[in-house]
Amino acid sequence: MTRQPIAAPLAGATAAGLALILSLPAAASIPPPPSAAELAQQGEDPAWAITEALTTEIGPRQAGTEAEAAARRWAVKRLTDMGFHNVREEPYMMPTWVRGEEAASLVGPFHPQKLAIAALGNSGSTGPNGIEGEIAYFASFDALVAAPDHLVAGKIVFIDHQMEPAQDGSGYGQYGRGRFQGPNVAAKKGAVAIVIRSIGTDSHRNPHTGVTTFEEGVKPIPAGAIANPDADLLVRQWQRTLSMRTKETYLGYTPEPLRMKLLLTPKQLGEQVSGNVIAEVPGSDPAASPVIVACHLDSWDLGTGAIDDAAGCGIITAAAKHVMTAGQMAGGQPRRTIRILWAGAEEVGVFGGKAYFDAHGKEKHAVALESDFGADRVWRVQFKLPESAADLEKRVSAAVAPFGVVTGHDEAHGGADVGALVEAGTPAVDLGQDGTRYFDVHHTPDDTLDKVDPAQLRQNVTVWAATLAILANSSDSELP
Amino acid sequence: MTRQPIAAPLAGATAAGLALILSLPAAASIPPPPSAAELAQQGEDPAWAITEALTTEIGPRQAGTEAEAAARRWAVKRLTDMGFHNVREEPYMMPTWVRGEEAASLVGPFHPQKLAIAALGNSGSTGPNGIEGEIAYFASFDALVAAPDHLVAGKIVFIDHQMEPAQDGSGYGQYGRGRFQGPNVAAKKGAVAIVIRSIGTDSHRNPHTGVTTFEEGVKPIPAGAIANPDADLLVRQWQRTLSMRTKETYLGYTPEPLRMKLLLTPKQLGEQVSGNVIAEVPGSDPAASPVIVACHLDSWDLGTGAIDDAAGCGIITAAAKHVMTAGQMAGGQPRRTIRILWAGAEEVGVFGGKAYFDAHGKEKHAVALESDFGADRVWRVQFKLPESAADLEKRVSAAVAPFGVVTGHDEAHGGADVGALVEAGTPAVDLGQDGTRYFDVHHTPDDTLDKVDPAQLRQNVTVWAATLAILANSSDSELP
Repeated sequence: MTRQPIAAPLAGATAAGLALILSLPAAASIPPPPSAAELAQQGEDPAWAITEALTTEIGPRQAGTEAEAAARRWAVKRLTDMGFHNVREEPYMMPTWVRGEEAASLVGPFHPQKLAIAALGNSGSTGPNGIEGEIAYFASFDALVAAPDHLVAGKIVFIDHQMEPAQDGSGYGQYGRGRFQGPNVAAKKGAVAIVIRSIGTDSHRNPHTGVTTFEEGVKPIPAGAIANPDADLLVRQWQRTLSMRTKETYLGYTPEPLRMKLLLTPKQLGEQVSGNVIAEVPGSDPAASPVIVACHLDSWDLGTGAIDDAAGCGIITAAAKHVMTAGQMAGGQPRRTIRILWAGAEEVGVFGGKAYFDAHGKEKHAVALESDFGADRVWRVQFKLPESAADLEKRVSAAVAPFGVVTGHDEAHGGADVGALVEAGTPAVDLGQDGTRYFDVHHTPDDTLDKVDPAQLRQNVTVWAATLAILANSSDSELP
Repeated sequence: MTRQPIAAPLAGATAAGLALILSLPAAASIPPPPSAAELAQQGEDPAWAITEALTTEIGPRQAGTEAEAAARRWAVKRLTDMGFHNVREEPYMMPTWVRGEEAASLVGPFHPQKLAIAALGNSGSTGPNGIEGEIAYFASFDALVAAPDHLVAGKIVFIDHQMEPAQDGSGYGQYGRGRFQGPNVAAKKGAVAIVIRSIGTDSHRNPHTGVTTFEEGVKPIPAGAIANPDADLLVRQWQRTLSMRTKETYLGYTPEPLRMKLLLTPKQLGEQVSGNVIAEVPGSDPAASPVIVACHLDSWDLGTGAIDDAAGCGIITAAAKHVMTAGQMAGGQPRRTIRILWAGAEEVGVFGGKAYFDAHGKEKHAVALESDFGADRVWRVQFKLPESAADLEKRVSAAVAPFGVVTGHDEAHGGADVGALVEAGTPAVDLGQDGTRYFDVHHTPDDTLDKVDPAQLRQNVTVWAATLAILANSSDSELP
């Protein structure tokens, strides 16, 4: 995609924002530049402003690290400056893994070539000297599962696949198993390490990281993802070695297996501090249960977490801000409190979502929503609401339809950080974003601000604001 | 762009190639798999086959290194297997620079962020401990030139710009000055180092390297390029620090200049062996001067040199092969010899082109052509031919027009590796390729096989074969 302008266009400012600009007192002579908070008041798109500032002033913010702590401090100040209420950190402890040195090469039988690799979260270490081994190729996660142990033991497993883009992101579950479960399966079969084709739909030398999980009692092996062009190269070399082995069968040639050198030196740091940041738009009815809207503040360490998930935090927060200030409803103040959850530690295991549920799971929530699928436009709304909310669904569908949003008929799931709430019975509304290009940059160094399309980001805010205004004014007979 | 299929489609096989397939003897029982040379005979697209095999079996091949030597050995075997004549290496010595450790971070006044950086060829070293310094921002190379020394001395210079894609690649000369000359200018003004926005039109975390040159007597300073998204980040942070300084003017705030940590430890290895590889299609008239067609075999070290310039070598060689074997001309053998030059060491200073000129510049050449601008389609033909060749120009224009090639009216230049020949008077024909996306991956880790579009590659071969067939059969009254 092309580079985006650095400054957020003001074309998307709301009418209310513009009214604020016009009502500002005449400028004193030589005024100081406006603060970020003032800019937000003056009609600058707050979703863009949050996304731009978080990626510029903090950048990568891996859970459990000092960068995530800095992001929390930044978030508390930002949300306070924006005029939200009850802004606070809610800390918790969580196990923390950090990346070390990373290098991989194909070292034979062809001329050595370096590969772009990133360790997966919870990967084991090769030790400082690295390892070298023969590659065992598997066309898919299922092929690895089906393989007898002797084809895996002592080898460096490679899992291939062909993930294609999908609007609803549906390839992630299927192809993602190579990352989620592949290392554990390979370890149990005796592999010395595992390298997977990145779970991504791009063709750039930027590997896609992400968390993997080893079962209790399974010793973590070194586990990394290589960039798609490097996986293509590995496959081409592997096809040649296969051809050499075929020759051996007939002609007595020496087989020359494909070999890799691998260096991954990540570390487990044990329990470290992480935390959620919470802010509220207070409702007019203190007895009404709140609407919860979530995103996650942490990001992977390779990129700046622009689409994953600074944009999500920008979207939900801008929408809540609009509901709070823009006079979109009669009376100006919503009936229900809108609780904004910028969750910590989503990427590494949804520790923030779990901590929120531990602290607040017994409180009644009217409905839960989450924005964690990039910055591209909302194309579909889906619901999981009580039967009493049939008319509410219609009102939401009608409100978002003018912005190109269709009503889907599958059940809403909420999202990772509100997943425990929804599983425990909290109603949910999903504002599904277009994920066609999401897995081009997901969990890569390429998750940077230029990937955010300001026009689509504004569409998200508009759709969210329209939805939130309705949900936050729903009656007690419609939502719990 | 999307990933391409791994195997070359056979749809583009020439009629002659298909005829060869059909004329092969019936297979013996259980035949061994065909060799690469056999595949090339059997109708596989030789341009794709060369590009695929060079990037798969050798990969990066920086001039003066063992990888370039391996590529020369590979090339001699490949060209011999394809049936060319007089296949040989012509070695020469050249000064060789190699990359070391590379790291850069923005370290204040905001939370530290790592940048994706690559040293420029001939960069100086920061030493193993790196350096830290204040950034001096310049919006362009011209702004740096115009700056008084005191704004540069002791600082880390940053050169910004806004290169946009162009079909004829015309932005490279203008914006490229920041790389070609920026480090020398910065060094003379007393900068401790220089970092430039990549000379590229993409938005990925892959920096664009390339050679820079310091004047005799100017001590090389550390010089690197950062990826475009990182340059965007630097600019956003710089704008904020500017705002802080403005505040200081009015409010007495402490100014906080933008600071960078930089580690680049490249080395000059002195004179090393490089070499050209030459092959020929012998002409029927030994007295006629040859047509020379060139590409370069070396590549930058970050990518695999697929579009720069394995594809160029594939294109010229496939075209020459078609002229040699496919019966595209009456008599089957061209009148003039076609000399194929796979030049060494183009990227680092056109040492192969100079060596060729030193060895062969006194020989008469009928006309020179070069393919070194990627793998996208030929869109324009231009000429620099003697007046006697007016009809020849018309014949070439007419032959390539059906493939969407327009005739331009500027003077042909040849290309880097035949530049000295053309400057000395050898006629030239330029088959100009579409460069719209060339600078997306030029000199980056992303220069990999998946960026080559097989359909456009075949269009190149077709246009080149049509052109070569005419030029190689031109009369002595038309060309020298």
